[in-house]
Amino acid sequence: MYMRISVQTKEIREAILDSTDRLLARYGYQKMTIDDLAKDVGIGKGSIYLHFKSKEEIVLSHIDRIVERVKKHLIKIAKSNEKTETKLREMLVLRVLFRFDSVQHYTESLDELLASLREKVNERRKIYFQEESEIFREVLEEGIENGSYEVNDTQKTAEAFIIATNSLLPASLSTKELGKRNEIEEKVLKIAEILIKGIKK
Amino acid sequence: MYMRISVQTKEIREAILDSTDRLLARYGYQKMTIDDLAKDVGIGKGSIYLHFKSKEEIVLSHIDRIVERVKKHLIKIAKSNEKTETKLREMLVLRVLFRFDSVQHYTESLDELLASLREKVNERRKIYFQEESEIFREVLEEGIENGSYEVNDTQKTAEAFIIATNSLLPASLSTKELGKRNEIEEKVLKIAEILIKGIKK
Repeated sequence: MYMRISVQTKEIREAILDSTDRLLARYGYQKMTIDDLAKDVGIGKGSIYLHFKSKEEIVLSHIDRIVERVKKHLIKIAKSNEKTETKLREMLVLRVLFRFDSVQHYTESLDELLASLREKVNERRKIYFQEESEIFREVLEEGIENGSYEVNDTQKTAEAFIIATNSLLPASLSTKELGKRNEIEEKVLKIAEILIKGIKK
Repeated sequence: MYMRISVQTKEIREAILDSTDRLLARYGYQKMTIDDLAKDVGIGKGSIYLHFKSKEEIVLSHIDRIVERVKKHLIKIAKSNEKTETKLREMLVLRVLFRFDSVQHYTESLDELLASLREKVNERRKIYFQEESEIFREVLEEGIENGSYEVNDTQKTAEAFIIATNSLLPASLSTKELGKRNEIEEKVLKIAEILIKGIKK
Protein backbone atom coordinates (compact mmCIF):
# COMPACT_ATOMS: atom_id res chain seq x y z
CA MET A 1 0.00 0.00 0.00
CA TYR A 2 2.79 2.42 0.91
CA MET A 3 4.52 1.33 -2.27
CA ARG A 4 1.52 2.31 -4.36
CA ILE A 5 1.28 5.78 -2.82
CA SER A 6 4.98 6.33 -3.24
CA VAL A 7 4.85 5.39 -6.93
CA GLN A 8 1.93 7.75 -7.49
CA THR A 9 3.73 10.55 -5.67
CA LYS A 10 6.74 10.09 -7.90
CA GLU A 11 4.57 10.02 -11.01
CA ILE A 12 2.82 13.26 -10.10
CA ARG A 13 6.14 14.90 -9.31
CA GLU A 14 7.47 13.82 -12.70
CA ALA A 15 4.30 15.05 -14.41
CA ILE A 16 4.67 18.45 -12.73
CA LEU A 17 8.26 18.70 -13.95
CA ASP A 18 7.24 17.61 -17.48
CA SER A 19 4.66 20.41 -17.53
CA THR A 20 7.23 22.84 -16.16
CA ASP A 21 9.45 22.03 -19.12
CA ARG A 22 6.63 22.74 -21.60
CA LEU A 23 5.49 25.95 -19.87
CA LEU A 24 9.00 27.33 -19.49
CA ALA A 25 9.38 27.02 -23.27
CA ARG A 26 5.98 28.65 -23.86
CA TYR A 27 5.86 31.45 -21.24
CA GLY A 28 9.28 31.73 -19.62
CA TYR A 29 9.86 31.66 -15.87
CA GLN A 30 8.36 35.01 -14.88
CA LYS A 31 5.04 34.56 -16.69
CA MET A 32 4.51 30.91 -15.81
CA THR A 33 2.07 30.54 -12.88
CA ILE A 34 1.23 27.67 -10.53
CA ASP A 35 -2.31 27.90 -11.95
CA ASP A 36 -1.04 27.29 -15.50
CA LEU A 37 1.01 24.42 -14.19
CA ALA A 38 -1.88 22.77 -12.31
CA LYS A 39 -4.06 23.09 -15.41
CA ASP A 40 -1.38 21.60 -17.67
CA VAL A 41 -0.82 18.65 -15.33
CA GLY A 42 -4.58 18.23 -14.82
CA ILE A 43 -4.49 18.41 -11.02
CA GLY A 44 -5.51 21.02 -8.44
CA LYS A 45 -3.26 23.87 -7.42
CA GLY A 46 -3.15 22.49 -3.88
CA SER A 47 -1.73 19.22 -5.18
CA ILE A 48 1.22 21.09 -6.64
CA TYR A 49 2.02 22.49 -3.21
CA LEU A 50 2.00 18.99 -1.75
CA HIS A 51 5.09 18.34 -3.87
CA PHE A 52 6.86 21.70 -4.06
CA LYS A 53 7.07 24.78 -1.84
CA SER A 54 7.23 27.37 -4.63
CA LYS A 55 7.60 28.07 -8.33
CA GLU A 56 11.28 28.60 -7.71
CA GLU A 57 11.67 25.15 -6.19
CA ILE A 58 9.78 23.60 -9.11
CA VAL A 59 11.99 25.19 -11.73
CA LEU A 60 15.20 24.39 -9.88
CA SER A 61 14.00 20.80 -9.51
CA HIS A 62 13.40 20.70 -13.25
CA ILE A 63 17.01 21.74 -13.88
CA ASP A 64 18.20 19.27 -11.24
CA ARG A 65 16.30 16.52 -13.04
CA ILE A 66 18.13 17.19 -16.31
CA VAL A 67 21.46 16.90 -14.52
CA GLU A 68 20.34 13.80 -12.60
CA ARG A 69 19.63 12.21 -15.96
CA VAL A 70 23.04 13.29 -17.27
CA LYS A 71 24.68 11.71 -14.22
CA LYS A 72 22.68 8.49 -14.60
CA HIS A 73 23.89 8.13 -18.19
CA LEU A 74 27.46 9.00 -17.21
CA ILE A 75 27.45 6.32 -14.51
CA LYS A 76 26.05 3.79 -16.98
CA ILE A 77 28.90 4.52 -19.42
CA ALA A 78 31.45 4.51 -16.58
CA LYS A 79 30.29 1.05 -15.48
CA SER A 80 30.14 -0.43 -18.99
CA ASN A 81 32.72 -2.82 -20.43
CA GLU A 82 34.07 -0.32 -22.97
CA LYS A 83 37.71 0.73 -23.08
CA THR A 84 38.64 3.68 -20.87
CA GLU A 85 39.21 5.80 -23.97
CA THR A 86 35.74 5.03 -25.34
CA LYS A 87 34.14 5.72 -21.97
CA LEU A 88 35.82 9.10 -21.57
CA ARG A 89 34.93 10.16 -25.10
CA GLU A 90 31.30 9.05 -24.79
CA MET A 91 30.97 10.72 -21.39
CA LEU A 92 32.27 14.05 -22.69
CA VAL A 93 29.92 13.93 -25.69
CA LEU A 94 26.98 12.93 -23.51
CA ARG A 95 27.39 15.69 -20.92
CA VAL A 96 27.28 18.26 -23.72
CA LEU A 97 24.68 16.81 -26.09
CA PHE A 98 22.23 15.52 -23.48
CA ARG A 99 21.96 19.05 -22.12
CA PHE A 100 21.71 20.46 -25.65
CA ASP A 101 18.81 18.11 -26.43
CA SER A 102 17.10 18.81 -23.10
CA VAL A 103 16.82 22.56 -23.61
CA GLN A 104 16.77 22.94 -27.40
CA HIS A 105 13.06 23.89 -27.37
CA TYR A 106 13.75 27.02 -25.29
CA THR A 107 14.21 30.11 -27.45
CA GLU A 108 16.02 31.99 -24.69
CA SER A 109 19.24 30.81 -23.08
CA LEU A 110 18.90 29.18 -19.64
CA ASP A 111 20.69 32.13 -18.05
CA GLU A 112 18.15 34.55 -19.52
CA LEU A 113 15.21 32.29 -18.71
CA LEU A 114 16.36 31.92 -15.09
CA ALA A 115 17.88 35.39 -14.67
CA SER A 116 15.98 36.02 -11.43
CA LEU A 117 17.36 32.77 -9.96
CA ARG A 118 20.90 33.52 -11.13
CA GLU A 119 22.76 32.96 -7.86
CA LYS A 120 20.91 29.75 -7.02
CA VAL A 121 21.46 28.39 -10.53
CA ASN A 122 25.18 29.21 -10.34
CA GLU A 123 25.54 27.59 -6.92
CA ARG A 124 23.85 24.45 -8.22
CA ARG A 125 26.05 24.35 -11.32
CA LYS A 126 29.15 24.22 -9.14
CA ILE A 127 27.71 21.18 -7.39
CA TYR A 128 26.65 19.55 -10.68
CA PHE A 129 30.15 19.95 -12.09
CA GLN A 130 31.66 18.55 -8.91
CA GLU A 131 29.43 15.49 -9.07
CA GLU A 132 30.11 14.87 -12.76
CA SER A 133 33.80 15.30 -12.10
CA GLU A 134 33.68 12.49 -9.51
CA ILE A 135 32.32 10.08 -12.14
CA PHE A 136 35.12 11.02 -14.55
CA ARG A 137 37.63 10.56 -11.76
CA GLU A 138 36.62 6.95 -11.23
CA VAL A 139 37.09 6.17 -14.91
CA LEU A 140 40.50 7.85 -14.83
CA GLU A 141 41.53 5.76 -11.85
CA GLU A 142 40.43 2.62 -13.63
CA GLY A 143 42.50 3.68 -16.67
CA ILE A 144 45.57 4.13 -14.47
CA GLU A 145 45.07 0.69 -12.90
CA ASN A 146 44.87 -0.84 -16.37
CA GLY A 147 48.25 0.70 -17.01
CA SER A 148 47.48 2.70 -20.15
CA TYR A 149 47.07 6.15 -18.55
CA GLU A 150 49.38 8.43 -16.66
CA VAL A 151 47.69 11.05 -14.49
CA ASN A 152 49.38 12.65 -11.51
CA ASP A 153 46.22 14.09 -9.93
CA THR A 154 42.98 12.37 -10.92
CA GLN A 155 40.79 14.96 -9.20
CA LYS A 156 42.35 17.94 -10.98
CA THR A 157 42.42 16.03 -14.26
CA ALA A 158 38.74 15.10 -13.97
CA GLU A 159 37.96 18.77 -13.24
CA ALA A 160 39.97 19.78 -16.30
CA PHE A 161 37.84 17.45 -18.46
CA ILE A 162 34.72 19.17 -17.12
CA ILE A 163 36.03 22.74 -17.48
CA ALA A 164 37.33 22.05 -20.99
CA THR A 165 33.84 21.15 -22.21
CA ASN A 166 31.78 23.58 -20.09
CA SER A 167 31.79 26.36 -22.69
CA LEU A 168 29.83 24.03 -25.01
CA LEU A 169 26.96 23.62 -22.52
CA PRO A 170 23.79 25.61 -23.08
CA ALA A 171 23.93 28.16 -20.23
CA SER A 172 24.63 31.78 -21.15
CA LEU A 173 24.06 30.90 -24.81
CA SER A 174 20.89 29.27 -26.13
CA THR A 175 21.30 26.11 -28.22
CA LYS A 176 20.59 28.19 -31.32
CA GLU A 177 23.38 30.60 -30.38
CA LEU A 178 25.76 27.74 -29.59
CA GLY A 179 25.44 26.39 -33.11
CA LYS A 180 24.19 23.32 -34.91
CA ARG A 181 24.07 20.05 -33.01
CA ASN A 182 26.48 18.26 -35.36
CA GLU A 183 28.96 21.16 -35.10
CA ILE A 184 28.83 21.02 -31.30
CA GLU A 185 29.36 17.27 -31.47
CA GLU A 186 32.37 17.76 -33.75
CA LYS A 187 33.84 20.31 -31.32
CA VAL A 188 33.44 18.15 -28.24
CA LEU A 189 34.90 15.15 -30.13
CA LYS A 190 37.96 17.19 -31.08
CA ILE A 191 38.51 18.30 -27.49
CA ALA A 192 37.95 14.72 -26.28
CA GLU A 193 40.53 13.41 -28.76
CA ILE A 194 43.21 15.84 -27.53
CA LEU A 195 42.42 15.43 -23.83
CA ILE A 196 42.43 11.62 -24.01
CA LYS A 197 45.71 11.53 -25.91
CA GLY A 198 47.04 14.03 -23.35
CA ILE A 199 46.65 11.59 -20.46
CA LYS A 200 47.92 8.47 -22.21
CA LYS A 201 51.18 6.88 -21.16
CA MET B 1 51.09 68.87 -38.25
CA TYR B 2 48.76 66.02 -39.25
CA MET B 3 50.84 63.73 -37.07
CA ARG B 4 50.24 65.93 -34.05
CA ILE B 5 46.45 65.97 -34.55
CA SER B 6 46.37 62.23 -35.09
CA VAL B 7 48.30 61.54 -31.89
CA GLN B 8 45.95 63.81 -29.95
CA THR B 9 42.92 62.10 -31.47
CA LYS B 10 44.22 58.73 -30.37
CA GLU B 11 45.02 60.03 -26.89
CA ILE B 12 41.52 61.45 -26.44
CA ARG B 13 39.97 58.24 -27.71
CA GLU B 14 42.05 56.27 -25.21
CA ALA B 15 41.12 58.69 -22.41
CA ILE B 16 37.43 58.25 -23.23
CA LEU B 17 37.79 54.46 -23.05
CA ASP B 18 39.74 54.72 -19.76
CA SER B 19 36.89 56.77 -18.29
CA THR B 20 34.36 54.29 -19.67
CA ASP B 21 36.14 51.55 -17.75
CA ARG B 22 35.93 53.54 -14.50
CA LEU B 23 32.30 54.57 -14.97
CA LEU B 24 31.11 51.11 -15.96
CA ALA B 25 32.50 49.85 -12.65
CA ARG B 26 30.87 52.73 -10.75
CA TYR B 27 27.44 53.08 -12.42
CA GLY B 28 26.97 50.19 -14.82
CA TYR B 29 26.02 50.57 -18.47
CA GLN B 30 22.43 51.77 -18.13
CA LYS B 31 23.12 54.55 -15.64
CA MET B 32 26.33 55.82 -17.21
CA THR B 33 25.70 58.94 -19.33
CA ILE B 34 27.73 60.74 -21.99
CA ASP B 35 27.65 63.77 -19.63
CA ASP B 36 29.32 61.73 -16.86
CA LEU B 37 31.85 60.53 -19.36
CA ALA B 38 32.69 64.00 -20.70
CA LYS B 39 33.10 65.25 -17.14
CA ASP B 40 35.35 62.35 -16.16
CA VAL B 41 37.57 62.83 -19.24
CA GLY B 42 37.58 66.61 -18.74
CA ILE B 43 36.32 67.44 -22.25
CA GLY B 44 33.03 68.71 -23.68
CA LYS B 45 30.16 66.38 -24.54
CA GLY B 46 30.51 67.38 -28.22
CA SER B 47 34.10 66.16 -28.24
CA ILE B 48 32.94 62.69 -27.23
CA TYR B 49 30.69 62.59 -30.30
CA LEU B 50 33.64 63.48 -32.52
CA HIS B 51 35.07 60.09 -31.59
CA PHE B 52 32.04 57.87 -31.07
CA LYS B 53 28.47 57.76 -32.40
CA SER B 54 26.80 56.52 -29.23
CA LYS B 55 27.20 55.15 -25.72
CA GLU B 56 26.76 51.69 -27.21
CA GLU B 57 29.68 52.21 -29.59
CA ILE B 58 31.84 53.49 -26.73
CA VAL B 59 31.22 50.49 -24.52
CA LEU B 60 31.70 48.00 -27.34
CA SER B 61 34.96 49.78 -28.25
CA HIS B 62 36.04 49.43 -24.63
CA ILE B 63 35.49 45.65 -24.80
CA ASP B 64 37.21 45.53 -28.21
CA ARG B 65 40.19 47.30 -26.69
CA ILE B 66 40.60 44.63 -24.00
CA VAL B 67 40.61 41.92 -26.67
CA GLU B 68 42.97 43.93 -28.90
CA ARG B 69 45.38 44.00 -25.98
CA VAL B 70 44.97 40.25 -25.45
CA LYS B 71 45.74 39.68 -29.13
CA LYS B 72 48.78 41.97 -29.01
CA HIS B 73 50.22 39.96 -26.12
CA LEU B 74 49.37 36.65 -27.82
CA ILE B 75 51.19 37.73 -30.99
CA LYS B 76 54.19 38.81 -28.93
CA ILE B 77 54.38 35.38 -27.28
CA ALA B 78 53.77 33.65 -30.64
CA LYS B 79 56.71 35.53 -32.19
CA SER B 80 59.08 35.00 -29.25
CA ASN B 81 61.97 32.53 -29.24
CA GLU B 82 60.39 30.24 -26.65
CA LYS B 83 59.69 26.57 -27.31
CA THR B 84 56.29 25.81 -28.89
CA GLU B 85 55.18 24.19 -25.66
CA THR B 86 56.03 27.27 -23.59
CA LYS B 87 54.32 29.55 -26.10
CA LEU B 88 51.10 27.55 -26.10
CA ARG B 89 51.00 27.37 -22.31
CA GLU B 90 51.72 31.08 -21.85
CA MET B 91 49.14 32.00 -24.49
CA LEU B 92 46.42 29.95 -22.82
CA VAL B 93 47.20 31.46 -19.42
CA LEU B 94 47.33 34.97 -20.86
CA ARG B 95 44.00 34.83 -22.69
CA VAL B 96 42.31 33.86 -19.43
CA LEU B 97 44.17 35.98 -16.87
CA PHE B 98 44.50 39.16 -18.93
CA ARG B 99 40.72 39.24 -19.22
CA PHE B 100 40.35 38.41 -15.53
CA ASP B 101 42.60 41.32 -14.57
CA SER B 102 40.88 43.69 -17.01
CA VAL B 103 37.42 43.29 -15.53
CA GLN B 104 38.10 42.34 -11.92
CA HIS B 105 36.92 45.77 -10.66
CA TYR B 106 33.39 45.14 -12.00
CA THR B 107 31.06 43.74 -9.35
CA GLU B 108 28.63 42.41 -11.95
CA SER B 109 29.54 39.92 -14.64
CA LEU B 110 30.12 41.33 -18.15
CA ASP B 111 26.97 39.58 -19.38
CA GLU B 112 24.88 41.30 -16.70
CA LEU B 113 26.61 44.64 -17.19
CA LEU B 114 26.03 44.52 -20.96
CA ALA B 115 22.70 42.64 -20.91
CA SER B 116 21.05 45.18 -23.22
CA LEU B 117 23.86 44.70 -25.78
CA ARG B 118 23.72 40.91 -25.50
CA GLU B 119 23.48 40.04 -29.20
CA LYS B 120 26.18 42.47 -30.25
CA VAL B 121 28.51 41.27 -27.49
CA ASN B 122 27.94 37.63 -28.50
CA GLU B 123 28.56 38.38 -32.19
CA ARG B 124 31.80 40.11 -31.28
CA ARG B 125 32.92 37.25 -29.06
CA LYS B 126 32.66 34.85 -31.98
CA ILE B 127 34.99 37.11 -33.96
CA TYR B 128 37.40 37.55 -31.03
CA PHE B 129 37.65 33.77 -30.57
CA GLN B 130 38.20 33.32 -34.29
CA GLU B 131 41.02 35.86 -34.29
CA GLU B 132 42.69 34.38 -31.22
CA SER B 133 42.36 30.95 -32.76
CA GLU B 134 44.33 32.13 -35.83
CA ILE B 135 47.27 33.11 -33.61
CA PHE B 136 47.25 29.70 -31.92
CA ARG B 137 47.09 28.06 -35.34
CA GLU B 138 50.33 29.70 -36.44
CA VAL B 139 52.12 28.42 -33.35
CA LEU B 140 50.75 24.93 -33.96
CA GLU B 141 52.01 25.00 -37.56
CA GLU B 142 55.43 26.07 -36.35
CA GLY B 143 55.41 23.17 -33.86
CA ILE B 144 54.58 20.71 -36.65
CA GLU B 145 57.41 22.09 -38.82
CA ASN B 146 59.83 21.65 -35.92
CA GLY B 147 58.78 18.01 -35.87
CA SER B 148 57.66 17.69 -32.27
CA TYR B 149 53.90 17.98 -32.79
CA GLU B 150 51.37 15.90 -34.62
CA VAL B 151 48.11 17.67 -35.50
CA ASN B 152 45.87 16.57 -38.34
CA ASP B 153 43.82 19.77 -38.55
CA THR B 154 45.51 22.89 -37.16
CA GLN B 155 42.38 25.04 -37.48
CA LYS B 156 40.14 22.66 -35.53
CA THR B 157 42.89 22.05 -32.98
CA ALA B 158 43.43 25.78 -32.46
CA GLU B 159 39.67 26.19 -32.01
CA ALA B 160 39.70 23.34 -29.48
CA PHE B 161 42.38 25.18 -27.45
CA ILE B 162 40.13 28.26 -27.40
CA ILE B 163 36.91 26.39 -26.55
CA ALA B 164 38.66 24.36 -23.83
CA THR B 165 39.60 27.53 -21.94
CA ASN B 166 36.53 29.68 -22.72
CA SER B 167 34.60 28.63 -19.63
CA LEU B 168 37.34 30.25 -17.51
CA LEU B 169 36.83 33.69 -19.11
CA PRO B 170 34.84 36.29 -17.20
CA ALA B 171 31.63 36.51 -19.25
CA SER B 172 28.47 35.08 -17.70
CA LEU B 173 30.30 34.85 -14.37
CA SER B 174 32.00 37.79 -12.66
CA THR B 175 35.63 37.35 -11.63
CA LYS B 176 34.45 36.94 -8.03
CA GLU B 177 32.08 34.14 -9.08
CA LEU B 178 34.78 32.47 -11.19
CA GLY B 179 37.04 32.11 -8.17
CA LYS B 180 40.39 33.30 -6.90
CA ARG B 181 42.97 34.36 -9.46
CA ASN B 182 45.51 31.72 -8.43
CA GLU B 183 42.86 29.00 -8.62
CA ILE B 184 41.91 30.09 -12.15
CA GLU B 185 45.58 30.08 -13.07
CA GLU B 186 45.98 26.56 -11.68
CA LYS B 187 42.97 25.38 -13.70
CA VAL B 188 44.15 26.85 -16.98
CA LEU B 189 47.64 25.42 -16.39
CA LYS B 190 46.19 21.94 -15.85
CA ILE B 191 44.15 22.15 -19.06
CA ALA B 192 47.20 23.52 -20.92
CA GLU B 193 49.34 20.61 -19.67
CA ILE B 194 46.86 17.99 -20.96
CA LEU B 195 46.15 19.76 -24.28
CA ILE B 196 49.85 20.24 -25.07
CA LYS B 197 50.70 16.63 -24.23
CA GLY B 198 47.71 15.64 -26.35
CA ILE B 199 49.18 17.08 -29.54
CA LYS B 200 52.77 15.89 -29.04
CA LYS B 201 54.24 13.25 -31.30
